[in-house]
Order: sequence, then structure tokens, then C-alpha cells
Amino acid sequence: VPAAEPDTPNVEVIEFEGLRWINIERPRAIDRAWLEEHYDFHPLDYEDVFSRNQRPKVDEYDGYLFVVLHFPVFDKRVNRLNAAEVDIFVGPDFLITLPNEPLQPLEYLYERCRTNEDTREDLFSKGAGYLLYKVVDACVDASFPMLRKMGLKLERLEESIFDEEANREIVRDLSNAKQEIINFRKIVRPQRTALKDLERTKRYVTGGMHIYFDDINDASERVWDMLENFKEVIEGLEATNESVLSHNLNDILRVLTAFSVIMLPLTLIASVWGMNVHVPGEGTVHAFWAILGLMVVVLIGMVTWFRRRGWL
Amino acid sequence: VPAAEPDTPNVEVIEFEGLRWINIERPRAIDRAWLEEHYDFHPLDYEDVFSRNQRPKVDEYDGYLFVVLHFPVFDKRVNRLNAAEVDIFVGPDFLITLPNEPLQPLEYLYERCRTNEDTREDLFSKGAGYLLYKVVDACVDASFPMLRKMGLKLERLEESIFDEEANREIVRDLSNAKQEIINFRKIVRPQRTALKDLERTKRYVTGGMHIYFDDINDASERVWDMLENFKEVIEGLEATNESVLSHNLNDILRVLTAFSVIMLPLTLIASVWGMNVHVPGEGTVHAFWAILGLMVVVLIGMVTWFRRRGWL
Amino acid sequence: VPAAEPDTPNVEVIEFEGLRWINIERPRAIDRAWLEEHYDFHPLDYEDVFSRNQRPKVDEYDGYLFVVLHFPVFDKRVNRLNAAEVDIFVGPDFLITLPNEPLQPLEYLYERCRTNEDTREDLFSKGAGYLLYKVVDACVDASFPMLRKMGLKLERLEESIFDEEANREIVRDLSNAKQEIINFRKIVRPQRTALKDLERTKRYVTGGMHIYFDDINDASERVWDMLENFKEVIEGLEATNESVLSHNLNDILRVLTAFSVIMLPLTLIASVWGMNVHVPGEGTVHAFWAILGLMVVVLIGMVTWFRRRGWL
Amino acid sequence: VPAAEPDTPNVEVIEFEGLRWINIERPRAIDRAWLEEHYDFHPLDYEDVFSRNQRPKVDEYDGYLFVVLHFPVFDKRVNRLNAAEVDIFVGPDFLITLPNEPLQPLEYLYERCRTNEDTREDLFSKGAGYLLYKVVDACVDASFPMLRKMGLKLERLEESIFDEEANREIVRDLSNAKQEIINFRKIVRPQRTALKDLERTKRYVTGGMHIYFDDINDASERVWDMLENFKEVIEGLEATNESVLSHNLNDILRVLTAFSVIMLPLTLIASVWGMNVHVPGEGTVHAFWAILGLMVVVLIGMVTWFRRRGWL
Amino acid sequence: VPAAEPDTPNVEVIEFEGLRWINIERPRAIDRAWLEEHYDFHPLDYEDVFSRNQRPKVDEYDGYLFVVLHFPVFDKRVNRLNAAEVDIFVGPDFLITLPNEPLQPLEYLYERCRTNEDTREDLFSKGAGYLLYKVVDACVDASFPMLRKMGLKLERLEESIFDEEANREIVRDLSNAKQEIINFRKIVRPQRTALKDLERTKRYVTGGMHIYFDDINDASERVWDMLENFKEVIEGLEATNESVLSHNLNDILRVLTAFSVIMLPLTLIASVWGMNVHVPGEGTVHAFWAILGLMVVVLIGMVTWFRRRGWL
Repeated sequence: VPAAEPDTPNVEVIEFEGLRWINIERPRAIDRAWLEEHYDFHPLDYEDVFSRNQRPKVDEYDGYLFVVLHFPVFDKRVNRLNAAEVDIFVGPDFLITLPNEPLQPLEYLYERCRTNEDTREDLFSKGAGYLLYKVVDACVDASFPMLRKMGLKLERLEESIFDEEANREIVRDLSNAKQEIINFRKIVRPQRTALKDLERTKRYVTGGMHIYFDDINDASERVWDMLENFKEVIEGLEATNESVLSHNLNDILRVLTAFSVIMLPLTLIASVWGMNVHVPGEGTVHAFWAILGLMVVVLIGMVTWFRRRGWL
Repeated sequence: VPAAEPDTPNVEVIEFEGLRWINIERPRAIDRAWLEEHYDFHPLDYEDVFSRNQRPKVDEYDGYLFVVLHFPVFDKRVNRLNAAEVDIFVGPDFLITLPNEPLQPLEYLYERCRTNEDTREDLFSKGAGYLLYKVVDACVDASFPMLRKMGLKLERLEESIFDEEANREIVRDLSNAKQEIINFRKIVRPQRTALKDLERTKRYVTGGMHIYFDDINDASERVWDMLENFKEVIEGLEATNESVLSHNLNDILRVLTAFSVIMLPLTLIASVWGMNVHVPGEGTVHAFWAILGLMVVVLIGMVTWFRRRGWL
Repeated sequence: VPAAEPDTPNVEVIEFEGLRWINIERPRAIDRAWLEEHYDFHPLDYEDVFSRNQRPKVDEYDGYLFVVLHFPVFDKRVNRLNAAEVDIFVGPDFLITLPNEPLQPLEYLYERCRTNEDTREDLFSKGAGYLLYKVVDACVDASFPMLRKMGLKLERLEESIFDEEANREIVRDLSNAKQEIINFRKIVRPQRTALKDLERTKRYVTGGMHIYFDDINDASERVWDMLENFKEVIEGLEATNESVLSHNLNDILRVLTAFSVIMLPLTLIASVWGMNVHVPGEGTVHAFWAILGLMVVVLIGMVTWFRRRGWL
Repeated sequence: VPAAEPDTPNVEVIEFEGLRWINIERPRAIDRAWLEEHYDFHPLDYEDVFSRNQRPKVDEYDGYLFVVLHFPVFDKRVNRLNAAEVDIFVGPDFLITLPNEPLQPLEYLYERCRTNEDTREDLFSKGAGYLLYKVVDACVDASFPMLRKMGLKLERLEESIFDEEANREIVRDLSNAKQEIINFRKIVRPQRTALKDLERTKRYVTGGMHIYFDDINDASERVWDMLENFKEVIEGLEATNESVLSHNLNDILRVLTAFSVIMLPLTLIASVWGMNVHVPGEGTVHAFWAILGLMVVVLIGMVTWFRRRGWL
Repeated sequence: VPAAEPDTPNVEVIEFEGLRWINIERPRAIDRAWLEEHYDFHPLDYEDVFSRNQRPKVDEYDGYLFVVLHFPVFDKRVNRLNAAEVDIFVGPDFLITLPNEPLQPLEYLYERCRTNEDTREDLFSKGAGYLLYKVVDACVDASFPMLRKMGLKLERLEESIFDEEANREIVRDLSNAKQEIINFRKIVRPQRTALKDLERTKRYVTGGMHIYFDDINDASERVWDMLENFKEVIEGLEATNESVLSHNLNDILRVLTAFSVIMLPLTLIASVWGMNVHVPGEGTVHAFWAILGLMVVVLIGMVTWFRRRGWL
């Protein structure tokens, strides 16, 4: 049974040299009230924060920026990639992050800022723009270990396709890997435009700092490149697996055909001499060996003939 | 038998602070006459309203905007998605909506405006542009529950593909789901351009209101993103289903081959000793057990050999 | 035997209020001479008119426009869509249409102008630009009935795929439908650019008339949208048909396997007791029933075992 | 044994009214020396001429244009399409063509200019730009007969797919046709950009002559359209062929299943009465007919049952 | 056991007429210290040099350019294409190349500059821009021999697909070739944008030198064209191989069916006369020949019938 919702807002604040970073994880109605009391944002933004699944975007207002970003999070309970949404408000002297579920890289960074004075100084002293860069950069970079794992999984799949022990599991594994790549792409695709918008919007960004946002863009494009490549790879593997299955089928059927082709005529010969009519050589032992000899001749003849036609 | 067409125009009007919302469901010739009498629109527009299947578009005129939009409607009778067309005229002091078939979200909104004074004030007090936004927004948002249902259906399909009980129905279900996605895309695709045109056309839109139309665009792009994703997912599922079918085929044929390979030679041996010639050990019971022994040896030999080749 | 080519130019003219519409069906050398005598067009244009298969295009010259358009025409003799080419010259006071084969909508419009004074006034009184619009609009609109027929055919195909009576014809029908769609696309694709050029080229177009050419563009894009949709639909149907065929294959093979698995061991048992050695229970009627009993036991055992493994 | 390389440059020149057309087929080191002596081109250009497989391109310099174009040439010895490269230098008073292998349309045009005074006057009197147009136009137009042959081949393939006599050759023919189309596309694809650059570069082009280069572009786009269409057609045919093969497989297996289902049980019955135990009706002729009757009943029963399930 | 990292920076320098080329292969922490001491680059650049797998890019700064490029390198140990990264700093009087693994063409060029005075003069005398061009050009050109090998491999694969001896290896070879092409594309794709950026950035490039970077771009686009073509070719080959496998399957099954159809009924006849009841003609030799005759008639009848239906 979930505990009753606490009646105090879940607002964490770090302040340093006049710049405030407010983090509200899984914001609820009471947090919204707190926000509306302290900041004067557009009503549509509040709605966006508290509604499900906004599209990644950057909205510019006179006094602040409203940014919505999605990041892939692996949900271990259902073995599935989900999109975690982070809503961000940035003003000249504040950064408000509202993750709709716990997002590790963001938590870590916040924790380090809270506990470690050096980190705090490093991040806060260059203004809200730089702090925003650090937050987004940490979240984007968290995709790379996931991608590396995916890459290893694809390599393992490639090897197991050609294993003799190819079993039904490989089809399911290929399907799962593909759906995972599709899911990842679904999360990253709309993100790219938002990050480009963020680069264009050079507000709260001083001096040579636009290079930093260019850096995020590079990372995001790299993520996309890798996903495009993974998609090509997995599609190639699926096609190959189909070919391998067809090939196995052909091999199996060739054996079956070989056996039928060899056994059926010999059985026919034996059945013919088993008829209750007066068969040639009835009751003589010479006939037995003669018929066995005939069988061997038929056998060799057919094997030779089919060998020549390439069936055996 | 359909009732005779009534001879009075089916025109509903809500008026508030000088702004009028006129709704004419399934407009007929008599409604056209009424419109032509009261408003001076371009003849091409009238034609568009009363002809079938216009493309979604936004046409700007000096005194008004003419908007054609399509929305997906699930027709339960034939289990199919259809496009419902809504033609809209907007002027400085009026909004005329002409749905060519009943469109639930539009009906609901209209009904609420008619009966609830608060809603009416909320919607009408910010001008024709805001009212237009509310109407279009309601219609676009109605797609999300449909999409969520589709998503669930795809997840169910993914699970049932790997069921042992895979039956012929899964092929039909995959096909139906795919055709539904294709149909949905067909409706939404041309819509996107029209909604972008609508955002660009900032007429009858006061102050900071352009943000609202940006919001609709976001929603519409999100619909499109989801459909793109669904298309990728269903194509992946189809490919996987093909692989599963191939795999099953291989398994079935392996069993068949195993049986033939084991049974045919044994039957041949039995038939040979059934010939009406003087077979070795004729009439002795030792021969019976000797031959059974031979059969067991052949059996074990072949199973071993085929095991080693990976056939069994 | 085709009649000898008449030696008079096949030129039809309608004149009204100083505007002339000249229609020359299947222009020949003699018609070219007539044109060169009366109008001073660029030599390349004459070449284009009399050479095969130009690309749709709009060429602007000082005193006139040269337009090449293609429209799909169903050739009943070979059951195939062909592209009919119409070359058009438009000047301030003339419209010359040169279809390279009879094009029904153009013929009808011309005929109505010739015979009906009202139509003539309606079409000619707004200048050459409006007349051009009417001609092109009629030709573009003629695609919709064809597309509707295609759509119905696709729906019929979808139903017949899941028919138990699926026969070889369905593969051929799917292929034909696909080739038809591919052919239609081939005709329409280059056309779209030309029609957009025509809209941009606002010559001989007075006042608010540019809206009309926008209308043609809408229609042409709608045709393209429908073809894109049809292409997706038919590709989906082909994939589905492949799955259905695989499924049928699996079902057939499962029956075959079931039969072999049940029959072969029983036949082996019977053959063993048919050997001319001293079989247990030789000559007794109890043995007969005992063996039949054994067979039933083996039968039940195997069916049970295979049921459990999911083969039967 | 190839003859020793002659030691005089292989330079052909036509001069008329101050404009020179120099043609050097398969240029060698000695021709390069000749060129370097007479013209002062950029060193990179010389390198390009004498290195293999440049990309089609148009490079502008102060005193001249350097153009590289590729054209498809059917090499009969290996039954393959190759790209023939033509390097062209154009200046105000010269045109130098350097085909790296004999290119028929270029040879023909050059020959006609050399021998026929009228052609020479026609081509040379309008300046270097017009001459360039004529050369390129002749080379581009040479693709159409090839494309027409390809089109006919595709039509023949379409028909033969549904032939009962479908043999292994059709797979190979489809593959060859596809590889040919892919090859053709590879040659034409980069060419398109170069020809568009050529149109944009209006140098050495006087008066209304830019229309001519527009004409080449039209032709080149038409070639591309046809190849796109051929690609769609051949992919459609391949998919259809796969379906036909699957269908044939189903038909074959249905026959096999039918036979096994009918024959195996009857053989079992016969084998049972062939056992050397006391079978019911042993030695009586009534039993023979009774068993045959039983077989017919079983046969009819099974055929009926399988008919109802749709297997036969 | 790897040797302990030497504690002197691994910096090689060539200097000529005031221009320095510094090459640091596999830069380590100590090299970074050396660089930071001697040059004042942006901290992000240092991070990029020492982190894995940057995206190819060109970053402009006031005093220098920072370029990251990737080139394919065939790793013989694992039979796989890897991307070698080269980071480059260019200033008015220096070029610093930092390959993260040995890159042959770069090594060769550096070695030639070091040992051969002529080469050094040729490369260094035209400024840093020209030296950069030469370095990049050498690395890009190194792709062509690899591509040519790939092309030959594809041709060999095409031939072996239609070999009668088609074995399981072909599926694996097709898959490997495809994965190799996919890998190559992955390396080259992001490179293209970077090289275009490099062309646009005309810094340190004097006079007519921009033509040289255009040349690199041409080469890089050619690489891409060839890879696109290879991708089409290999996809075509995979589809063809699938068809060939299906065809073989059909042929095998036709033989199997033929045999069953011929043998099973004959065996049934023989079994019927083998029953221990009073069969017609029991004990007579005429019956034997009569039954054999019956068998031949049945055989011929069935073969004829199936021939007519196209099964044999």
C-alpha cells in the first residue's frame, strides 16, 4: 500500500553565488502549488509538466526558457526501455529540474553538487547556462553505456546465428533486440530537434559557451548514428537468420528425400516377392541372395543417378 | 427508411460577447443556401464544403480563413478507421464548424459551451483565434486514446507470436493491425502540413496566443511520431512472425525426417524376411529374435549417425 | 488497314470574345506545318510536341507558356495504364491543346464548349488562365474514379487472402494490382513538380485566380497521397499473403507428419509379424487380436507424446 | 599481343569559324604532353583526366570549364554495363573531348561534323556552348534505347513468372536484370548533380541558349525516373516470384500429403492381413473382397474428411 | 606483458620554412601535458582527443581549427573494419596530427616528409592548408583499394550463388559482406559532413587552393556512392539467394513427391496380394506377371497424369 502523499512539497534547493538549482522529483499537486507561488510561468507550461508524455521541445519566454527532454531508462522489472521525462525551467538566476521519475545521472550530479563544494563551485560559477549544459550533458552521456551493451548483444547474436545448435530462442532474441532498438529510436528521434533548438537559443549562455551546447548536439547525433547503424545491423541479421533457416530446411529435406528415394523401391521389391502367388524362385535360397543382389544394384543405380543430378 | 430531409436549415448558434460559434452537422443543400445568404465566402469554398474528401488545408482570404481538417473516427459497424472531415470558417467575430459526420470531441465541446456558462466565457472571451484553438485541440487530442489502444494491441500481438498455440488468427490480426496503422497514417499525414500552416497564419490571434497553436502542432507531431513508431513495430513483428513460422516448419520437418529415417529401413528388413523365397532362418524362432536384434542395431546406428550430423 | 493520312490539318477551333481554343488531337506533320505557319513558337517546343514521352514541365517564354502534362489512361485492349501526353501552348489570347491520344475529359469539355453557349461563356470570359485551369482541372479530376476502383480492388484482395479457397490467382492479382499502382505513380510523380511550377507561374492569370491553380495542386497532391497509401496497403497485403502461405504450408506438413508418425510404426509391426520365420503366436487367432491391441497402444502412446510436444 | 604504343599524339581536330573541337580517344601520356604544351589547365585537371573513375562534376576556372561525365556503355564481352568517362574542357574558342573508351554517340557526331559541312556549320556557328550542348545531348539520348530494351525485358519476365514451366532460369534472369538496373543507377545517380551544375554555369552560353541545357536536364531526369520505376517494377516482380514459388511449394506438398494420407492406412491394413498369425477369414476368397471393400470405405472416408478440412 | 609506459612524450616534429608538422601516435597523458604546455587549445578539445570515439567534426576557434576525422582500418586479427580516429589541430604555422592508432597512409606520408627533402618542400612550401589537404587526401584515398576488394568479393558471391554446389557457406559469406558494408558506411557517413565543413572553412587556405578541398569532397562522395551501390548489390544478392534456396526446395520436394506418388500405390498392390487370405491367382505364376503388368499400367497412368498437371 503506497504511503499517503506527504503534505509538504518535495522541493530540494542548492544555492550558490545567487544561482539556485531546484530539483523536484516526481512533482505532485502540492509541488505545483509551491512552484506557482514562487515563479510566474505560463499556464500551458504548468499543464505540460503535470500531463503525461509531452514531446521534447524548447519554448522561449521573456524571462525564462521551458525545456522538455526525454531520456531512455531501462526498467528492470519489465525488461523494457522507457522514456523518462525531465522538464526544465531556466532563468537568469535559477534552474528548476522536474524529472517525472528518478533519473540516475541527474540524481548523481545533484547529490555531488549538494555534498561536494568543489563541484558546486565548478558548476555554479559560470552561470545558469553552464549549469544547464552540465545537467543535459550528464543525461545524454548516460546513453552510451546502454548502447555499448546493445552493440555487444548484437555481436553475440551474429555469432549464435551460425551455431549448429540454432534454436527457437534466437528468433525471440532477434525480435527483442529489434524492438529495443526501435524503442530507443522512438525516444531519441524527437529529442534531436529539441537539442538543436537548445543550441540555437543562446540565452543565459555567456561568452564562448555556445561550444558546449554544440558538444551536446554532437553526442546526441552520435547516439542517433549508432542507433541507425544498429538498425541496419539487426535487419541484416534477421535476413541472414531467415536464410540460415531456409538452408537448414533444404538440408533436412534433402536427407528425407534421399531416404525415401533409397528405401521405397527396395521395399517395393521385397513386397512383390512377398505376394502369395507363385513368385520366381519361390522357396529357393538362391532367390533370396539374387533378390538382395538386385536390391543392391537398384540402390547403387539410384544413388549414382541422384548424385549426378545433385540431389544427394 | 431515412426520414425525409427537413426543410429548415440545421444551424446551431452560440453567441457571447459579439463572437458567434455556428455549428452545422452534415451540412445539406438547405444549409448551404443559409450560409450563402448570411456570409460572403468564395464559391470554391462552398464547393469544397459540399464535395467529398478535400485535402486538409488552410486558405487565407481577406476577411476570413477557410480551414479543412480530417480526424480519425472509428466506425464500429465495419471495424475500420474513417476520416471525418471538418470544414471551418473563421472571421474576426465568428467561427463556423461544418463536420461532415458527427465528431464526438466537437459535439462535447459545443454542448458544454451551450449549457455551461463558465466554459462559454472561458472559450469566447479571448477572441475567435482562441476558440478555434480550443476546437482543434479537442479534436487532435481525441487521437491519443485510440493510439494507446493500438499500442496495447501491438504488445498483445508481440506476446502471442511466441505462444506455442500460434494459430492462423495471428496472421490475420497482424494484417489488420497493420492496415489500421496505414489507415491512420493516411489520415494524419496531410493534416500535419495544414496544422503547420495554421500556426504560421497568425490571424485572429492576439498577443501571446501563438504559443497555443504551437501546442497543437506538438500534439500532432507526437501523433505522427507514435504512428511512425507503430509502423516500425508492426513491421518488426511481421518479420518475427515469419521467422517463427519458418522455425516451426523446420521443427516439424525434423520430426518427420527422424521418423522416416528410423522406420523405413526397419520396414525394409521386415519385408525382406517376408518374401516367399527360402529366407535364412525360415520357420525358426531364433531367427525372429535375431532379426529383431538386427533391427535394434540398425536403429541405434542410424540414430547415432544422425545425431552426430545434427539432424535429430 | 489504317486509312491514308488525310492531307488537311486536323485543327478544331472555338473562338469567343477574342480568346481562341485550338484542339489538335494526335498532331501529325501537316498539323505541325499549320502551327508553324500561324504561331511563332521555339523550335525545341515543336520538337517536344512531335517526339515521344517528354517529361511533364512548364517552360516560360516571352509571349507564351509551353506546358507538357501526362494523364493516366486505361488501355482496355492490353489491360494496362498508359500515360497520355497533352502539350499545351497558352498565350494572352489563345489556348492550344495537343493530346497525343484521345483523352476523354478533354474531349468532353471541348465538346461541351462547342455545343453549349453557356459553358463557353463561363469558360472563356475570364481569360486564357481560367480556361487553362478548367482544362487541367478536368483532366486531373478524371484520376479519382480510377483510384476509387483501385481502392475497391484492394479491399476485395484483402478479403480473398484469408479465404480458405486461396488459389494461385491471388498471387497474380496482387502482382497485377501492384504493377498498376507502380505504373500510376510513374505517371503522376513527375507531374507534381510541373503542376507546382504552373501555380508559381502566375501568367495570364488575373486577380484572385491563383486560388484556382492552388486547387489543382491540392487535387494532384491528393492523388499522390492516395497512391502512397495504396502502395503501403498492397505491400502490406503481399507480406500478409506470404504469411498465409507459410501458415498453410505448416498446417499441411503437420498433417503429413501426423500421418507418417502414426502409420509407419504400425506398418513396421505388421511387417515384422509377416516375416517367414517362426513369429510368436504363429497361426493363432489370439495373436492377431494381441497384435492389434499392441498397435492401438503404440498409436495412443505416440499421439499422446506428440500432443504433449505440440506436434499434433 | 597489343601493338606498341605509337609515338605520335592521337589528336583529331575540327576547326570552323575560329571554334576548334579536339577529340582525343583513350588519351595516353603522349597526348597529355601535347595538351600541356598547347593549353594551360590546372594540374589537378590533368591528373583527373589520367586517373581512373573520377566522379561526374563541373569545375569552373577563369578561362575554361572542366567537365567530367559518365555514360553507360554495354560491354558485350562480359554482358555488363560499364561507365564510360568523358572529360571535357570548354573555353570560349575550343571544346576538347577526352573519352576514356570509344563512345558511339560521340564518335558518330564527330564523324558527321568532320564529313558533313552542313552539320559542321549547324553545330559550330552558335559558339562553344551550343557545341557542348549537342555533344552532351547526343550522349544522354543514347541511354533511351537501352532503357527501352530493359523495359521490354521486364515485361517478358513478368509474363514468364506465371508460366507453368517456371524454371530455375527465371531466378537468374530476375537477378541479372536487377543488377543491371542497379548498375545503371550507379552510373546515372552522380551524373544528375553534374548536369544541374552545368545548367547553372551559364558560361559560353549566349542568349536564349540556357533553354537547351534545361533540355538535357529534362532528359537526364527522365532517365532517372525510368530507372526508379524499373527498380520498383523489378522489386515487385521478385516479391511476386517468391510468392509463386511458395504457392507451388504448397501445391506440391498438398499432393504429397494427399497421397500419403490415402496410401499409408491402406498399406497398413494389407500388412496386417499379411501377418503369419491366424487372421480372420484366413484362406477364404470372401475375406479378400471384404478387405478390399474395407479399404475403399476407409479411402472414401478419409478423402471426405480431408476435403471438408480443405486439405485436398 | 606490455612494457611500462615510457616517461618521455612520443612527439615527432618536422619543421620546414617556419611550418611545423607534429605527429603524436596514440597520444597518452604525458603527450597531453606536452601539448598543453606548448599550445593553448580549448579544454573541450583536449578532452575530445583523449576520450573515445568522437564524432567527425570541424570546430573553428580564433587561432586554430580542431578537426576530428575517422578512417576505416582493416583489423586482421578479428577480420573486422574498425574506425581509426585522427585528431588534427591546424594553425597558421603548425599542423598537429594525433592518430589514436597507427594509420598507414599517414605514417607513410610522414615518413616520406621526414626522409625525402623534395617531398618536404613540395608539401610544406604552400602553407598549412595545403599540408592539411595532402594529409587528409592520402587518408581518404586509402579507402579505394578496400572498396575495390569488396567489389571483387561481391562479384565472386554473385557467381557462387548460382553454383550447383551452393552450400551453407554462401549464407555466411553474404552476411559477412553485408555487415562489412554496413560497418564501412557507419564510419564514412558522419565523415561526409565534416569534410564538407572543412571545405567551407577556408582558413589557412591561400589563393586557388579551395579547389583542393573540393577534390577531397569529390573523393569522399565517391566512396559513399560506391558504398550505396554495394548496399543495393548485396541486398539484391541476398534476395536472389533466398529465391535460389526456395527454388532448390521446390525441386527437392518435387522429386520426393514423384517418388512417393509412384512407389506407394505399387507397394499397396504388392501388400494386398501378400495378405494371408485367398487372393485371386493364388499360387500361380501367371498371376505374378499379371500383377507386375498391373503395376506397370498404374505406374504409367500416374506418371502421365502428374506430368499433365505439371508435377513431374
